Amino acid sequence: MNNMSENSADYAIRKMGACRIPSPMPDLQFTEDHERVLLHSDPKDVNRFFREGNQPPAFEIAGPRSMIFFDPADLRCGIVTCGGICPGVNDVIRAIVLSLYHHYGIDKVFGFRFGYAGLSARPPHPPVELTPKRVDGIHLNGGTILGTSRGPQDIGEMVDTLQRMRIGILFAIGGDGTLRGLHAIADEIARRGLKISVIGVPKTIDNDIAYIEQSFGFETAVTASRTAIYSANIEATGAINGMGLVKLMGRHSGFIAAYATLANSDVNYCLIPEVRFSRDAFLSSLKERLLNKHHAVIVVAEGAGQELMEETGRRDASGNIRMGDIGVYLKTQIRQYFQETGMDFTLKYIDPGYTIRSMPANPHDSVFCLLLGHNAVHAGMAGRTDMVVGYWKNHFTHVPISLAASERKRIDPESRIWKNVLASTGQPAKML
Amino acid sequence: MNNMSENSADYAIRKMGACRIPSPMPDLQFTEDHERVLLHSDPKDVNRFFREGNQPPAFEIAGPRSMIFFDPADLRCGIVTCGGICPGVNDVIRAIVLSLYHHYGIDKVFGFRFGYAGLSARPPHPPVELTPKRVDGIHLNGGTILGTSRGPQDIGEMVDTLQRMRIGILFAIGGDGTLRGLHAIADEIARRGLKISVIGVPKTIDNDIAYIEQSFGFETAVTASRTAIYSANIEATGAINGMGLVKLMGRHSGFIAAYATLANSDVNYCLIPEVRFSRDAFLSSLKERLLNKHHAVIVVAEGAGQELMEETGRRDASGNIRMGDIGVYLKTQIRQYFQETGMDFTLKYIDPGYTIRSMPANPHDSVFCLLLGHNAVHAGMAGRTDMVVGYWKNHFTHVPISLAASERKRIDPESRIWKNVLASTGQPAKML
Amino acid sequence: MNNMSENSADYAIRKMGACRIPSPMPDLQFTEDHERVLLHSDPKDVNRFFREGNQPPAFEIAGPRSMIFFDPADLRCGIVTCGGICPGVNDVIRAIVLSLYHHYGIDKVFGFRFGYAGLSARPPHPPVELTPKRVDGIHLNGGTILGTSRGPQDIGEMVDTLQRMRIGILFAIGGDGTLRGLHAIADEIARRGLKISVIGVPKTIDNDIAYIEQSFGFETAVTASRTAIYSANIEATGAINGMGLVKLMGRHSGFIAAYATLANSDVNYCLIPEVRFSRDAFLSSLKERLLNKHHAVIVVAEGAGQELMEETGRRDASGNIRMGDIGVYLKTQIRQYFQETGMDFTLKYIDPGYTIRSMPANPHDSVFCLLLGHNAVHAGMAGRTDMVVGYWKNHFTHVPISLAASERKRIDPESRIWKNVLASTGQPAKML
Amino acid sequence: MNNMSENSADYAIRKMGACRIPSPMPDLQFTEDHERVLLHSDPKDVNRFFREGNQPPAFEIAGPRSMIFFDPADLRCGIVTCGGICPGVNDVIRAIVLSLYHHYGIDKVFGFRFGYAGLSARPPHPPVELTPKRVDGIHLNGGTILGTSRGPQDIGEMVDTLQRMRIGILFAIGGDGTLRGLHAIADEIARRGLKISVIGVPKTIDNDIAYIEQSFGFETAVTASRTAIYSANIEATGAINGMGLVKLMGRHSGFIAAYATLANSDVNYCLIPEVRFSRDAFLSSLKERLLNKHHAVIVVAEGAGQELMEETGRRDASGNIRMGDIGVYLKTQIRQYFQETGMDFTLKYIDPGYTIRSMPANPHDSVFCLLLGHNAVHAGMAGRTDMVVGYWKNHFTHVPISLAASERKRIDPESRIWKNVLASTGQPAKML
Repeated sequence: MNNMSENSADYAIRKMGACRIPSPMPDLQFTEDHERVLLHSDPKDVNRFFREGNQPPAFEIAGPRSMIFFDPADLRCGIVTCGGICPGVNDVIRAIVLSLYHHYGIDKVFGFRFGYAGLSARPPHPPVELTPKRVDGIHLNGGTILGTSRGPQDIGEMVDTLQRMRIGILFAIGGDGTLRGLHAIADEIARRGLKISVIGVPKTIDNDIAYIEQSFGFETAVTASRTAIYSANIEATGAINGMGLVKLMGRHSGFIAAYATLANSDVNYCLIPEVRFSRDAFLSSLKERLLNKHHAVIVVAEGAGQELMEETGRRDASGNIRMGDIGVYLKTQIRQYFQETGMDFTLKYIDPGYTIRSMPANPHDSVFCLLLGHNAVHAGMAGRTDMVVGYWKNHFTHVPISLAASERKRIDPESRIWKNVLASTGQPAKML
Repeated sequence: MNNMSENSADYAIRKMGACRIPSPMPDLQFTEDHERVLLHSDPKDVNRFFREGNQPPAFEIAGPRSMIFFDPADLRCGIVTCGGICPGVNDVIRAIVLSLYHHYGIDKVFGFRFGYAGLSARPPHPPVELTPKRVDGIHLNGGTILGTSRGPQDIGEMVDTLQRMRIGILFAIGGDGTLRGLHAIADEIARRGLKISVIGVPKTIDNDIAYIEQSFGFETAVTASRTAIYSANIEATGAINGMGLVKLMGRHSGFIAAYATLANSDVNYCLIPEVRFSRDAFLSSLKERLLNKHHAVIVVAEGAGQELMEETGRRDASGNIRMGDIGVYLKTQIRQYFQETGMDFTLKYIDPGYTIRSMPANPHDSVFCLLLGHNAVHAGMAGRTDMVVGYWKNHFTHVPISLAASERKRIDPESRIWKNVLASTGQPAKML
Repeated sequence: MNNMSENSADYAIRKMGACRIPSPMPDLQFTEDHERVLLHSDPKDVNRFFREGNQPPAFEIAGPRSMIFFDPADLRCGIVTCGGICPGVNDVIRAIVLSLYHHYGIDKVFGFRFGYAGLSARPPHPPVELTPKRVDGIHLNGGTILGTSRGPQDIGEMVDTLQRMRIGILFAIGGDGTLRGLHAIADEIARRGLKISVIGVPKTIDNDIAYIEQSFGFETAVTASRTAIYSANIEATGAINGMGLVKLMGRHSGFIAAYATLANSDVNYCLIPEVRFSRDAFLSSLKERLLNKHHAVIVVAEGAGQELMEETGRRDASGNIRMGDIGVYLKTQIRQYFQETGMDFTLKYIDPGYTIRSMPANPHDSVFCLLLGHNAVHAGMAGRTDMVVGYWKNHFTHVPISLAASERKRIDPESRIWKNVLASTGQPAKML
Repeated sequence: MNNMSENSADYAIRKMGACRIPSPMPDLQFTEDHERVLLHSDPKDVNRFFREGNQPPAFEIAGPRSMIFFDPADLRCGIVTCGGICPGVNDVIRAIVLSLYHHYGIDKVFGFRFGYAGLSARPPHPPVELTPKRVDGIHLNGGTILGTSRGPQDIGEMVDTLQRMRIGILFAIGGDGTLRGLHAIADEIARRGLKISVIGVPKTIDNDIAYIEQSFGFETAVTASRTAIYSANIEATGAINGMGLVKLMGRHSGFIAAYATLANSDVNYCLIPEVRFSRDAFLSSLKERLLNKHHAVIVVAEGAGQELMEETGRRDASGNIRMGDIGVYLKTQIRQYFQETGMDFTLKYIDPGYTIRSMPANPHDSVFCLLLGHNAVHAGMAGRTDMVVGYWKNHFTHVPISLAASERKRIDPESRIWKNVLASTGQPAKML
């Protein structure tokens, strides 16, 4: 995270207008608008700004305000979930519905079906009403009760839908592409001069959104990867020169693979997008390991080693480049290589992606999603827009979409966490 | 199971010789040699035999005998595990070692490494000594501490190894191919006039061995398949025309797929080897379901629909025909078919095979494996050979290898269990 | 099970009348009324009856009949759940509702709330309608959606309720007391000359109902007890002379304690109702073990050692004798004894009863409950009454309530299963 | 956390002497001695210090140093685990042993058995050698392989033992009492002028140590409490006026109860030590709830409501006041109260304490413990002493024992987290 924006102005949140309505929440400790949490935690970094007469960069702290922008009496809200499923989406939906209802007395909440497609002129299914009764217990299951889809929709059409349905706040739960779309929606709303707030809840099982320390579902994913790694190890140690290969999530950032490696000491190789490796160096290290230890467990993030494969050139419906399948590539290369050596060997390939993505949130993520949903509602009610709810140094924060989307959080190969992965696996620091 | 052998003589167990040594087990209720459990449970079936003056077919009941064949004082035993891993193998190894040690005072037990290869003239790794301390806690992990491999070895070489190491009883844990090999070993032992007993412990996660009601690991597999089916359903219901496709174990018999379907009511199609279906009939039923219900969950046993794919003609190291991958085939065919229809759809394919096979035994299977291992030891000590330990109507039994290998247990498409599967899924009884 | 009824007439099932209506089930393999499964599986036992010209005792086999007694067009059914909760109750409710609806087209099904109290003249809550939609997914949770209570109600009042609501079949899911009550209801119905069938589904987590090999929830309970035993062992081995004491279910029969012991080899003492022990003998064995091994894990069934405590004389609402709490008794006695010895020691007492009882059914029990519920419906539709659905040698059966309630299934201290428990724990066979 | 020490000097760490030996760690990114993480994250708080010319309070950041104090060639280390067990203790032991061995080449590591008793003049069992092989896989089990005990030992005797065994660094894993003992050991070491470093690893499942954001085992405990709360809810909703009462850990601080409540929305009352309540106000609120909703789930932290019970006056071996058992107290009071009302009711009491404490660490805690153990080793090697390894704003830190033991972290009843608990349960904010 080297290119962190150090410009304090980048942290300013767009607002719909002045907050003139007293909050109906009676007994909550309200957050003041001026409360901030510092980007930096090193005293020298902070002092540098003060010395130069500047404000150090800091996030607005999320939470309920004593004065709000929207009148609860006639506010109508919408929720949409986009992109791949991830543990905790239903928790967030439920938290938003319950907070709107119990904190602000709002009972007109609509769920758009199947992602942005549900906001288009011809939605696949009409929106559904979301009541406390409807969301009762939904967080005990994975997936999303609203359904999801990938890909953009016409921005004008979507704003038309919001206007037609008289939606005051739209909550969008989604990743990169979803947030870029939401930013465009906010711009179109501003162009039309509408009083519609859009609040993003960042969803990335990969935990790769900048300026946000933790994203929901990540902990559950690391926990759930234990089963696959266990299996890979059992298969590897039970065969002559047995190898277990596990593909985990991580398109651009290897956080799941790295933490799963630290959490499961059986892993012997951890391959992530941030650290290049060559086919030959990896395979010859692997061969050496088999000669010495007779088995190996390999964890590979889905975005690792893309440069080894021919570019597919294709993109998925969300506009993401369709990656080569590094799991299948490695499976094929390892097979071919060891068949040529004439060694006895066994290779078992495990791809637990869908199983992990469809898990319900674990208790850690459940609590996190609950508070995330609450804070999304508080932000919307206080007239914030074009922002996402973030998390920084134990505070929920308001982060402009443009800042959150400006770069991606990745593992620094010089960082201590990566050094610990190397120490834990014993793999060579360089395989080039 | 129509061609069940009704010839009582087929149930006779080969013996090494007379049992002249009193068992050192002091306080156990011994089983008498004449105890039997009837093959049939219908009074008319049984009466028919008596009326005609014949003995109805019945299995010898397993258990410790008061007089044994081998002298514990100088007996040496061996254990070998063959074929794919399966929940409970370590439980069986442990039960055999502990029973030999605690019931009979035998402390010379050798584990051959990596299947029959460990018995060959040039084993990949030398045999290891198995003591109570060595097997302490091993049943808490999946896989096999001895390692395994597929494929036959030279029968003569293997008997040479047994002779050279002065093994008195060889316990082989394995499936079809392993048992056929064990039968050949028994014949070669007889030809050489040796006093070596061979006892099989039938291992088939598919639960497809004839004359044996239950095989270890099956219950654990059905239990473990719940996660994959859950995920398939979450993915399917969360997308526009979402489909979840799960491949489960079952090369020749669909017991795991059928019971997993009954245990998880989300399944909408269950495809098994015993019931043929055509590509077109299946796909058009699937399309109809999507039009009505907008999602579908499909469970397919790995041996289903083999006739739809071109024969590979290849065999694996165990001599099993290398099957076409029905999971990948269906994934491809479904994608192609629905792309042609122009419908929006999503298909998620889950193959949890290795994850399920590497699970530790659940408590049900733990108890079963414990008693299975004990009874294998009792059978060997009592001089039985060329047999497997079976289970029939709540009794552990002695079953000749030739009988157990004579046919395969399969699901009868006219049986109530299959009718219940059809009722549970709502799939057409015929898709041809 | 020594006093097994050998009188074939005891197995006859009471019927409402002749079956004159063709079943609406089109494609199921119907069970013939004459199909039987033998009580005995030993050829000599069976032959003895035939030789003397008698029928050997055998159960009527459950399943759908081609001709049925009740006209589905105007049949109304009721379901009631009684006594303590047990994994699988919701599965059975759901299976009954779905079978009535899908197999027979019956959509008038009522759930009586909170046990027999819901059938009384003044029920705590009125009955609810049970539709396929209402029971969707209920089996994924433990407990009972209908609620339950203990204790008898006025038989006349309950039959009044059935008459008033025009119930044709009443399904009662419950244990001993419930079945006795159901028998009385059947008698009162007969006395009034009504055409109401009553079908019991035996519920006993303890697996102690005679003439029934398996009761639902038992497997789940054995599985779930693993956590408590694991904890007891971790606590015991982590302290100076550490002891872990776990109380498991089992009022009259120690099946759960015995199977949990076999499934978890850490257990050093297993105490069950069927095997008496004295306080002093047990404590002095325990002391000896601590001196040698420095830790001990003890599993005690709730009904064990009742004679050691003063009789409470009280009965619970179901009329069961209120037992002394053997767990608390042993905890107190162990503490007192070792404090007197002056030894350092630690004792951790774990009582996981409610946690185990409230688990959802595991996949094994899910399948079992599904088929149990189906067969209860088939029995009722075919005009059987005053019976329970049993399970014997892989067949679902019809068992007269009077037979099932005539005795209790218990562990024979001379049986192999108990000998295996002794071998597994290493505890003295006699502690008197 | 109002009385947070704002005196920067309080954060200074005691050192053994200058670091003159180059670290043998070749490729790790070393931490510089001057690196700090700010106590505060609010820019105004920080600016206040700078404006007044003071250093804002900040923690020394943990991590490997390029120059170290102890010569790895002849260093001998000791590890001791004290107090109640907690998920992750074995992970920490393993991480310390592996870091000493792999990072610094130290192979003389001794494990003292059963807490400080193992350091006394007459230990219950002699110390054991801890090698990488000995600690292989230990983290997969709960508890502590070294054993533990409560209570202090003679400080002089313990330092004698360290001297006699020529221990250079003692790692103590324990809570409050253990850390106070460790501080006294450090003082005695200083008095004798010895070169022995003592490093604490704070263990508190309650997460109540000041100046440390997260303690290991807490996440696992919150996760594990889900089962008990689930059971309580199933029991409560399945009975007429059913109540489920769950006692969770939390002697002085209700973090586990509060987070378990947020993670499990079934909880209707959460009672913690920080918020007083009266017997009558609680019971009358409970009665009102039963009249409206017919069931209730109550979570109580073990330290809640102590003032309601007579003081026991006793202390446990660790010197902690022996608390009254609030779980048993509430069970009794609720029973008595509702019996007097004459209402039908059921109360099920669940105390999952031992089961939760003995769980293995979940993956989150596994990673945390791994890094905690590493940083304890780095701190010791760099000559720090009389400190614990803490965690603050995503950094591992060095915290003087005197600071960490100066106060306790508790839930502020005015904080947002407690307001969220109130919102989630719907319980009255005041029950006095």
